[in-house]
Amino acid sequence: MPDAAIQSLLDGSGKALAAAISLVEDESSRAEALLEAIYPHPGSAYRIGITGPPGAGKSSLVDQLITRFRQSDRRVGVISVDPTSPFTGGALLGDRLRMGRHYRDRDVFIRSMATRGHSGGLASRSQEVGDLLDAAGFGVLLFETIGVGQIELDVMEAVDTTLVVLVPESGDDIQLMKAGIIEIADVFAINKADREGAGRLASLLEQMLAMKPDAGGWQVPVEKTSATRNEGLDELYGRLLEHHAHLQESGAGRRKQEQRYRRRVESQVASQVMGKFWTPARGHLLESRLEAVSPYELARTILELD
Amino acid sequence: MPDAAIQSLLDGSGKALAAAISLVEDESSRAEALLEAIYPHPGSAYRIGITGPPGAGKSSLVDQLITRFRQSDRRVGVISVDPTSPFTGGALLGDRLRMGRHYRDRDVFIRSMATRGHSGGLASRSQEVGDLLDAAGFGVLLFETIGVGQIELDVMEAVDTTLVVLVPESGDDIQLMKAGIIEIADVFAINKADREGAGRLASLLEQMLAMKPDAGGWQVPVEKTSATRNEGLDELYGRLLEHHAHLQESGAGRRKQEQRYRRRVESQVASQVMGKFWTPARGHLLESRLEAVSPYELARTILELD
Repeated sequence: MPDAAIQSLLDGSGKALAAAISLVEDESSRAEALLEAIYPHPGSAYRIGITGPPGAGKSSLVDQLITRFRQSDRRVGVISVDPTSPFTGGALLGDRLRMGRHYRDRDVFIRSMATRGHSGGLASRSQEVGDLLDAAGFGVLLFETIGVGQIELDVMEAVDTTLVVLVPESGDDIQLMKAGIIEIADVFAINKADREGAGRLASLLEQMLAMKPDAGGWQVPVEKTSATRNEGLDELYGRLLEHHAHLQESGAGRRKQEQRYRRRVESQVASQVMGKFWTPARGHLLESRLEAVSPYELARTILELD
Repeated sequence: MPDAAIQSLLDGSGKALAAAISLVEDESSRAEALLEAIYPHPGSAYRIGITGPPGAGKSSLVDQLITRFRQSDRRVGVISVDPTSPFTGGALLGDRLRMGRHYRDRDVFIRSMATRGHSGGLASRSQEVGDLLDAAGFGVLLFETIGVGQIELDVMEAVDTTLVVLVPESGDDIQLMKAGIIEIADVFAINKADREGAGRLASLLEQMLAMKPDAGGWQVPVEKTSATRNEGLDELYGRLLEHHAHLQESGAGRRKQEQRYRRRVESQVASQVMGKFWTPARGHLLESRLEAVSPYELARTILELD
C-alpha cells in the first residue's frame, strides 16, 4: 500500500480500511509491510472476546453492547470469527443480520471471518484485522466466536477481557465442562435469563469460581441478561468497563499486550526459520526416503544434512 | 519402555498398551523412543474418521459399526477425540457409555482423549495412540470427533476414510455449510433417518456432490441410517469396506499414508529446529526489546542475531 493509502487508513478512511483488510485476508505478501507500517498505532484499543455455545444469543448481546459503547462515543469494530464452517457455518451469518441496525453507522465496523479450507491461521488473521481497525481509530474491538475449539481459545488468548455467554440450560452440562470456561472467563453472562434455571446456573458458577485460584485481584462476575428484552445489559456493560479499568490499574492489561506482541514475534520468526530450513535438498531427502525408515529417524537425518 | 514391554505391546498385551498410551498422553520424553521402536509395525490398520454435529448419533452408529467389524473378526480401536471441553465436554462422555456393551470385549479398545488446557497437539497425540493400537494388532481404528473445529479437520486429514454423520434437520443449515463437509466426506450417513426431511437432505447432498470435482474415481455415497433401530447399518458398513477397497486398488490409500508420514516428519523437524533456534541470547533479545519496535522488525533483528 502506498504511504498515502496508509495515511488514509490512519485517518479513518473506510475505503482504505476495507482495502487493507482484503490484503490481510488474502494473505497478500504486502500485508506484512502494511501491518509494519501502521505500528505502533495499534495497541490502544480495548479488545473483548465474546464466546459461548451456539444459540446462546451472543450476537444479540453484542448488538446491545455496541449500542452502549456508541452512547459513550466509542467507535466499535466487531470481528466474528467462524472457524467452524463445516457444521456451524450458518450460525454467524444469521447472527450478523441481527446486528444489522448498526450497519449504517460508520463508526461501527462489522466483519465476519471464516476458515478458508484447511489453511489455518484464522486466529492470527483475526488479530491482524483487529490491528487494522485499531489503527483506523476503532477504540473497542469485539471478537465474537462460537466457543467450541482451539481457534476460539487462540482468539481468547489475544484479548483483554473474555466474556463467556451461557444460557440457563447450560447448567445441565456444566459439571462436565471441567475447568475450561472457568479458566478463560473474566466475566460471565447468563443470557435468556428469563428461562428456568438461570438462578441455579448462577449459583453453580459462583461456587466453581470460589474454588478458582486468585486471578490477580479480579472477582469474576456473573450477570443475568436478556439481550432481546434489553435486561441486565447496563450491568453487564458496567462489568466490562470495570474489568478494563482493573487491567489498566493492575498492570495486567500491559502484560497481556506484551504477550500478544511476543507471540506475534515468535510466529513471525518460526515461519521465516522453517521457510529457510526446508531447502530443496532437504525436501528431496524427505520425498526420497518416505517410509523407508521411521519418521523419527528420517527427521534426524534431515536435521543432520548440511 | 524396556524391549520386553515393547514386545508385549506388539504381542497385544492390554497392560503394555495401556502403559504405552499413558506415555503418549503424558507427552513423556520416552514416548518418542517408544513410537520409533514400534516402527514399521503401524501402518496396516484401516483408519476411519467419524465426524458430525453434536446429537447426530455418531456413537450409536460407531457402536453398530464395531459389532459388524467384530463379526468379521477384526479387532477395533475407538479413539474419541474431544477438543471441545469448554462447551461440549460432556457429549463424548455420554457417548462413551453408549458403547458400553463392547467394553468387556478385549478385542475392542475404546479411549477418549481431550484437550488438556491450551496445550494443543491433540490431533497428533490421537494419531500416536492410533499407531500404538495399530502396532498392538487393532486392524480397524475409528476416530470419532464432534465435527466443529480445526482439530477435527486435522484428525480427518490423517484417516483413510471420512464418514460424515448428519441428521435430517441438518438440511436446514446445509446451504450455509459451504463446501466444507462436501470436501472432506468420503461417505455420508443421514442418521435418525426415520425423522422428517431425510429424503430431502439426501437429494440436496447428492446435488452438491454432483458439482464436486472428480474425487479420483470414487462416488461419495449417501446412506440413510437409524443406528438405534439398526436400520441401514449393513449398507453403511458395506460402503466403508468399498471405500477401503477403492483406496487400496487406486493407490490413494498409499498416498494418504505417505502424507501422514510426511507430516509427522515435518512436525518432528519443526519442533527440533525451533527448539534449537531459541537460544538464551535470542530469548533475551525478545524480552528486552518487547514493543520497542514493531514485531516484524524485532523478528528480523532476532533472525539476524548470530
